[in-house]
Amino acid sequence: MRVGFIGLGGMGSGMAANLLKAGHALTVYNRTAAKAEALVGDGAALAKTPGEAARGDVVITMLADDAAVEAVVFGSYGVLAGLKPGAIHISMSTISVALAERLAAAHRGAGQGFVSAPVFGRPEAAAAAKLFIVAAGEPQAVQFCQALFDVLGQRTFVIADEPPKANLVKLSGNFLIAAVIETLGEAFALVGKAGIDRADYLDILTNTLFGAPVYKTYGSLIAEERYAPPGFKAKLGFKDIRLALGAAEALQVPMPVASLLRDRFLTLLASGGGDLDWSALAALASRDAGEPSPLIAAT
Amino acid sequence: MRVGFIGLGGMGSGMAANLLKAGHALTVYNRTAAKAEALVGDGAALAKTPGEAARGDVVITMLADDAAVEAVVFGSYGVLAGLKPGAIHISMSTISVALAERLAAAHRGAGQGFVSAPVFGRPEAAAAAKLFIVAAGEPQAVQFCQALFDVLGQRTFVIADEPPKANLVKLSGNFLIAAVIETLGEAFALVGKAGIDRADYLDILTNTLFGAPVYKTYGSLIAEERYAPPGFKAKLGFKDIRLALGAAEALQVPMPVASLLRDRFLTLLASGGGDLDWSALAALASRDAGEPSPLIAAT
Amino acid sequence: MRVGFIGLGGMGSGMAANLLKAGHALTVYNRTAAKAEALVGDGAALAKTPGEAARGDVVITMLADDAAVEAVVFGSYGVLAGLKPGAIHISMSTISVALAERLAAAHRGAGQGFVSAPVFGRPEAAAAAKLFIVAAGEPQAVQFCQALFDVLGQRTFVIADEPPKANLVKLSGNFLIAAVIETLGEAFALVGKAGIDRADYLDILTNTLFGAPVYKTYGSLIAEERYAPPGFKAKLGFKDIRLALGAAEALQVPMPVASLLRDRFLTLLASGGGDLDWSALAALASRDAGEPSPLIAAT
Amino acid sequence: MRVGFIGLGGMGSGMAANLLKAGHALTVYNRTAAKAEALVGDGAALAKTPGEAARGDVVITMLADDAAVEAVVFGSYGVLAGLKPGAIHISMSTISVALAERLAAAHRGAGQGFVSAPVFGRPEAAAAAKLFIVAAGEPQAVQFCQALFDVLGQRTFVIADEPPKANLVKLSGNFLIAAVIETLGEAFALVGKAGIDRADYLDILTNTLFGAPVYKTYGSLIAEERYAPPGFKAKLGFKDIRLALGAAEALQVPMPVASLLRDRFLTLLASGGGDLDWSALAALASRDAGEPSPLIAAT
Repeated sequence: MRVGFIGLGGMGSGMAANLLKAGHALTVYNRTAAKAEALVGDGAALAKTPGEAARGDVVITMLADDAAVEAVVFGSYGVLAGLKPGAIHISMSTISVALAERLAAAHRGAGQGFVSAPVFGRPEAAAAAKLFIVAAGEPQAVQFCQALFDVLGQRTFVIADEPPKANLVKLSGNFLIAAVIETLGEAFALVGKAGIDRADYLDILTNTLFGAPVYKTYGSLIAEERYAPPGFKAKLGFKDIRLALGAAEALQVPMPVASLLRDRFLTLLASGGGDLDWSALAALASRDAGEPSPLIAAT
Repeated sequence: MRVGFIGLGGMGSGMAANLLKAGHALTVYNRTAAKAEALVGDGAALAKTPGEAARGDVVITMLADDAAVEAVVFGSYGVLAGLKPGAIHISMSTISVALAERLAAAHRGAGQGFVSAPVFGRPEAAAAAKLFIVAAGEPQAVQFCQALFDVLGQRTFVIADEPPKANLVKLSGNFLIAAVIETLGEAFALVGKAGIDRADYLDILTNTLFGAPVYKTYGSLIAEERYAPPGFKAKLGFKDIRLALGAAEALQVPMPVASLLRDRFLTLLASGGGDLDWSALAALASRDAGEPSPLIAAT
Repeated sequence: MRVGFIGLGGMGSGMAANLLKAGHALTVYNRTAAKAEALVGDGAALAKTPGEAARGDVVITMLADDAAVEAVVFGSYGVLAGLKPGAIHISMSTISVALAERLAAAHRGAGQGFVSAPVFGRPEAAAAAKLFIVAAGEPQAVQFCQALFDVLGQRTFVIADEPPKANLVKLSGNFLIAAVIETLGEAFALVGKAGIDRADYLDILTNTLFGAPVYKTYGSLIAEERYAPPGFKAKLGFKDIRLALGAAEALQVPMPVASLLRDRFLTLLASGGGDLDWSALAALASRDAGEPSPLIAAT
Repeated sequence: MRVGFIGLGGMGSGMAANLLKAGHALTVYNRTAAKAEALVGDGAALAKTPGEAARGDVVITMLADDAAVEAVVFGSYGVLAGLKPGAIHISMSTISVALAERLAAAHRGAGQGFVSAPVFGRPEAAAAAKLFIVAAGEPQAVQFCQALFDVLGQRTFVIADEPPKANLVKLSGNFLIAAVIETLGEAFALVGKAGIDRADYLDILTNTLFGAPVYKTYGSLIAEERYAPPGFKAKLGFKDIRLALGAAEALQVPMPVASLLRDRFLTLLASGGGDLDWSALAALASRDAGEPSPLIAAT
């Protein structure tokens, strides 16, 4: 398949490499072209504009936020202008439901296909093709993309015909992860101040009712208070909670835990912790309990 | 071993039966003696007072709340009076850290052993000897009890020498479960109002990052809005959140999510939902989103 | 002075009438021209476009929200196009800090003056020229406008040279009012459920430490559960809390009570209460306490 | 009238002095007798036990908390033992609704009168006889005490026949004050970070909708960040919020702002700020906004 790939950051570079390895004819675009060098060395073509990367059967965008996606799609020489009728844009970035609605409408208006397919997984999972993909769009379009999803992830969940619903599922998932971080933070602040060994405590949790990846991954970061280097930055976590709250507001759904998380992230950012891992929320629970919290102090 | 067992409710009756099956000489006590009949038929002795049940090597208490434990231990003809020097009281109920401290001091004063060993697991797990046990106490005493724990549960975690720490771990665990219920409730209110299929959504969660028993158990109750009959009543969940907040207050640890849960439980109780399963917290998130929520209305 | 006035709603019509009475040469504009009839009958000129209303020394905008102000200022035949260099736009609407920043920059770029002068007071106060005005802008411009402020309000507070600061003060004030509503709602739910007479309770509050207009006005609405007809609609209150949170987010200031208010407003809106008075927040506190709350049920 | 007065702290000493000045035959009791010296010099009798102070027509208790009142009333040689049938105990301390219920029942059982009459006002107001008194009890008993209330306060509000209702009103009032502190704290954090002058801002608030003593008193403390010396200590504020939440829990009334205040107070106490004025809650809002907050740092 002729595939364009736009966005070669921590996630995208691993994903693009996997597509190339699987034998697809890959054209890549990145704002800073240097990041494309390795892929070009392995046989990818380099596009000078997003639109040029969008001239194949499918173009994938994997970018940091709404603004980056808007620039790449709606800008001059952008995806919308470059994509042929019938070709498909797969948006895999974590973006707002509102932008997904705009993208769906714009591509429909241009006779192009559009599939939302955000992912769960950190950069290691992207590189190892172990992502979980949540896809939504017209059934034929989603089916056409399935071969690519099989290359990129370990499993694809097709959730709906309307692309924005996949984005809502993704945002709600990040909300659930952040809530796990916050509640673990509070629980560790409690048992830690009581003098219980943090590693022992985590061992109990993950070997009883809480034996899921989310508790293991974030539980060990929190138990060890290891908030740097970041796997996913607090400022990006804040962005996603804002997007979840924005989607919920549009539907008139109050989410008090999400509101609390928004305030916690603001506190962390105001303390200079935006570039820490988002699990650093837990350091605020310790600080509010009067416990020493070196990373916060250091920032 | 000569074992006394006090409290033959949903949890205790299965546990006592397992001890009997394992060949221990069992003496049981329950406030309403009728519940002891089956066990007596299988060979258990029936005590007329808690103190009488406490005359063996070990006595286990498995009761509903602090008041029940206080009555059984400190009352006339109670455990404290009946237990011989050197014999051990194993408290397996979910009680306050403060009461565990009082019990530890009282038994120490009387030359008796005391082990806190609260459990994770619902009545089915108790009957199937699949409980998780969190134990704390003097190492020798805990070790002496291990044979009994092996009969009652699938795994024992020894967390500390001070018995109240096991109770704190248990309470913090129930806090974490209630937090999962609340956050799932908010997430389902969001995706449900957006028209996403609730079962599909749960399938995504439990097959990606949230594949732990706590998400499977409560996720399916919430996805199906099946809040009755109760596995664990909302009013007991409220009790445990109060105890967690009480322990946190004594340590000066603010826990904002726990505070939010306390308010949610109060709302549920004030709406007449105290006897629903505690997962009915999720119905409040739906109601606040303006979604029909039949069970709340019905109560 | 030759004054243009744009926006003849509940607030604006009384304000414009006062300017006319004071002898100013008034040109009015309103999207639905019918609302201008009485003023025209009293001698005001009727403009066909916002820009036409902006050809005098000063033009005042008093509109419902950001979108209305943007349309009137930046639209074709708008205020920005119509205002002469050196003439002044006084923005008295409750708008976002971000829009005030855009307006300030746009007018500065066009060599025009810009003063932010939002007001405290309900329609009765506007009609009676009893508004409180919070003004910010270049000192000379503000001083030039003072004669108009004296006609419109009982007192003007000049807070800063940068216009957006007046908008921030206004938004923070509406936050404080909403917080009074919420806390009174909780207090009345408590004492009301205890069987204390609501009117007696209010009498105590307003005659001791809480003898301010905000407690008298909203206290009596809440004591009597009189949430319709609205003096200020819940959906507008929600808008203002959102704007306050937006301004706070831009400054990285967490405001947990404002977050809680946002969720309460969302709940009220989702229950169909958006057109009730914003004091209807208090009905949610009663409902969550299991108390009958007819207005919520009726909506 | 023969009046006993128990509790000569910051509030009680001024109140007792006013009773003496008004010509009442005063017998005083204080745990540390030294505090009674000045009053004895002015003609008061000194009792050796609380019971001895309770032998007149009326005995007033004005103590720090539930524990102090319980000790003085139920202890040996206490008020309950010393008070004659028909004589009246006036409880003016800020105590729990639950203790007020116990006191009412105990005195009724002993054929004694009991009036709850907690006050609003700081020590200066007590000394100046400017307290506001909220009274509840049997109408005849309250009427009998009115002459004393007239000496102690500027106004008495009789709220109910059941004494505990006066305590509930008092606790709800302290909740409302703490909520004002918290919301002012958030508002000042916002406008302060925006560079608006804090004194100017307070001037606007107190001269418009917020012209009540509670905003003037606490607004100026917060505007100037003057949290020491304390007028009312944070740890006492925390106590009162706990009592309000306890009373609300007994009635199944969720109060989310009160929950938030409880967490804020816990944070302040855990940071070592328990002896600051309770308005120091506002320093937490500043700290969470990343603003320098010297007093918190210093503690």
